[in-house]
Amino acid sequence: MSVESLRFLTPEQTRTLASEYGTPVYVVSEDLLRQRAEETLSFPAPFGLTVRYAMKANPNRALLKIFAGMGLQIDASSGHEVQRAMEAGIPAGHLSLSAQELPENLAELLDLGIEINATSLNQIRLIGEARPGRTIGLRFNPGLGSGGTNRTNVGGPGSSFGIWNEYTAEAQELLDTYNLSCIRIHTHIGSGSDPDVWMRAAGLSLDLVRKFPNVTTLDLGGGYKVARMAAESSTDLQTVGKPVADALRAFAAETGREIHLEIEPGTYLVANAVSLISRIQDKVDTGSDGYTFYRLDTGMTDVLRPSLYGAQHPLVVVGKESDPTETEEAILVGHCCESGDILTPAPGDPEALQPREVATGHIHDYVVIEGVGAYCSSMCTVGYNSFPPSPEVLVNTSGSAKLIRRKPSAQVLWANEVTD
Amino acid sequence: MSVESLRFLTPEQTRTLASEYGTPVYVVSEDLLRQRAEETLSFPAPFGLTVRYAMKANPNRALLKIFAGMGLQIDASSGHEVQRAMEAGIPAGHLSLSAQELPENLAELLDLGIEINATSLNQIRLIGEARPGRTIGLRFNPGLGSGGTNRTNVGGPGSSFGIWNEYTAEAQELLDTYNLSCIRIHTHIGSGSDPDVWMRAAGLSLDLVRKFPNVTTLDLGGGYKVARMAAESSTDLQTVGKPVADALRAFAAETGREIHLEIEPGTYLVANAVSLISRIQDKVDTGSDGYTFYRLDTGMTDVLRPSLYGAQHPLVVVGKESDPTETEEAILVGHCCESGDILTPAPGDPEALQPREVATGHIHDYVVIEGVGAYCSSMCTVGYNSFPPSPEVLVNTSGSAKLIRRKPSAQVLWANEVTD
Repeated sequence: MSVESLRFLTPEQTRTLASEYGTPVYVVSEDLLRQRAEETLSFPAPFGLTVRYAMKANPNRALLKIFAGMGLQIDASSGHEVQRAMEAGIPAGHLSLSAQELPENLAELLDLGIEINATSLNQIRLIGEARPGRTIGLRFNPGLGSGGTNRTNVGGPGSSFGIWNEYTAEAQELLDTYNLSCIRIHTHIGSGSDPDVWMRAAGLSLDLVRKFPNVTTLDLGGGYKVARMAAESSTDLQTVGKPVADALRAFAAETGREIHLEIEPGTYLVANAVSLISRIQDKVDTGSDGYTFYRLDTGMTDVLRPSLYGAQHPLVVVGKESDPTETEEAILVGHCCESGDILTPAPGDPEALQPREVATGHIHDYVVIEGVGAYCSSMCTVGYNSFPPSPEVLVNTSGSAKLIRRKPSAQVLWANEVTD
Repeated sequence: MSVESLRFLTPEQTRTLASEYGTPVYVVSEDLLRQRAEETLSFPAPFGLTVRYAMKANPNRALLKIFAGMGLQIDASSGHEVQRAMEAGIPAGHLSLSAQELPENLAELLDLGIEINATSLNQIRLIGEARPGRTIGLRFNPGLGSGGTNRTNVGGPGSSFGIWNEYTAEAQELLDTYNLSCIRIHTHIGSGSDPDVWMRAAGLSLDLVRKFPNVTTLDLGGGYKVARMAAESSTDLQTVGKPVADALRAFAAETGREIHLEIEPGTYLVANAVSLISRIQDKVDTGSDGYTFYRLDTGMTDVLRPSLYGAQHPLVVVGKESDPTETEEAILVGHCCESGDILTPAPGDPEALQPREVATGHIHDYVVIEGVGAYCSSMCTVGYNSFPPSPEVLVNTSGSAKLIRRKPSAQVLWANEVTD
């Protein structure tokens, strides 16, 4: 495996930002956010397209505002995310809620004018009870997933997401009970980058559209594989979009219904637009038959994906003063007293160590962890070992940096404990 | 596998607490904390014993105060934990810091009088530079771990924790450079419940004590296996302690040095003393050849161990009004839009689903997740999908409940984002 290189930062910029904001610090590239957003906006869609950013990937308001300014709308996965997006200035009409758990203030949110997709029969009932007569979307599980049937999955029989595809009659009955009109079908199968899988997903989803005559929009949820490591390759949206567009055209020719398309990228939009600058705060080894370890000043408290999935992120050593000229094999670990706090697991096996060839780093040098835009600051064990959240900085299109999330004192972690 | 039963709550108490505090809510049993603490205080130790609570397992100040009141001291894993414990009223002299990353205010903490274990050669240097001439402990990696050599581990060549055992001469040289006196040897091998492993650990650790003549204390760090599920069995501290005590006696007979023992339980003290009351907020299935899913109002945002390790926790259905009489097989999932947010993985395989036989639950019924005292509220993906932290309640020895951590508004999650 070749030594990875910096994604958008330069070594000099890395040193400057580290010195200005301290480490660890997330750095967001506005340029890359905009490039990816432009690509999603050109997803093939013969009868209109809405791109919704799946904000759970990275809900910082600065990102929401940039995407909103480009015409993207929002996919929210909880009532809290709806509130968060609205406080960031997103109009309610540009928000769509597809949640495993509906919020207590559901009626109030519906009254604001958000879109909603019911993800279970019971959710149809709850929405109908709260606000009968309105329009809703239905999220179905089309029975197709990208993993095995007894594996965790977003589609197929092993998934709890959406209404099982055999229950369209039960769904229709509930719609009728509450005088709800289904105008949108939503599916999400974790499709990846294979155009054939997208063709099957579109076909199964259009079969559902066929059963609900008021539907005008098909939402093909998330799941574009994104290359983080140099040896990986990303999904080409034009390639996977083509069979979808073909299917929509064929459906229109057959039924006369011109279906608007929605997509909900999260990872695709943000994964490679954020880098985490960390510092090598110690270096240890376990002898001539053992390993060399770089201990970083970050870890699962900022980037959990390697510990959780065995995910691979590029790890780029940047010298404190000058660029390293040698390389070595090292295991990079986090700062928690936790054996699983590791940045170099074997791919897909978080418990196995896989030494990584990196530019030789020394204590005080930096390590930039690349590809941390999605599901890192939003999905980490922040607070573990009482480490507080790290700050977030945006490098805007003119190249200047600006703080978009402050680093709080660790005391915020115990501020809600009751003293007596 | 038999249906699990409640650990310390009664069904009636579950309903009352859920109604008073909402769900999800962590409930801590002071009785169980005290029972476990008493057991640790009787760990065999011929020449004196200090029990240190590894606070990273659950750092709520109420727990720290209960343990401190019984004579336990504290093992802190970061400078932030030291601060947190001191704000809870723990005297500095009762705090021992063994960290992967030393804090920036190291000199200040040392001046307060905390104990410290250097966990690398560089940490000896940093401590010596900050405060030459003081006493310190040294954490060594004795070369023995409870897992394979290329697995994540707290001991052995695959571990970054501690100074490698071949580097005693280098350690001594650094001690001499800074006029430091090593009075404590610390090891941590993740020993589990096998007395033979503890005997080997004690032997390897005493070999290190032999090389440092000023050492008066041996700290055999953590790692007692605790049964969470009914079919598992917990470590018997008397059983694993006996070979340790024998080794200390033999060492004294041989060298005349009567070594004080320290142990650092975390999980052992708290794992089974905390239950999480959650609610079934939805129930879905994937047809006759599929699965039944209970969607809870909690998940990896409160309990990450199943998603991270495939850890098994008892899941006990408590009827909203009355006790269920039937059982069924179900997959229990969390409230995040995340396929890995699951409470019933296969043991050790977080990606595989393993349906669990539970008392049949319906929407609005409760599910008590047992064994969540250790590494749950302290190590979870709190904030993911913008779900805020859950409240914590203590049931004291007289049986009355008291809030020990408030539930904040979700807005705390984005309070540090910069608005402009």
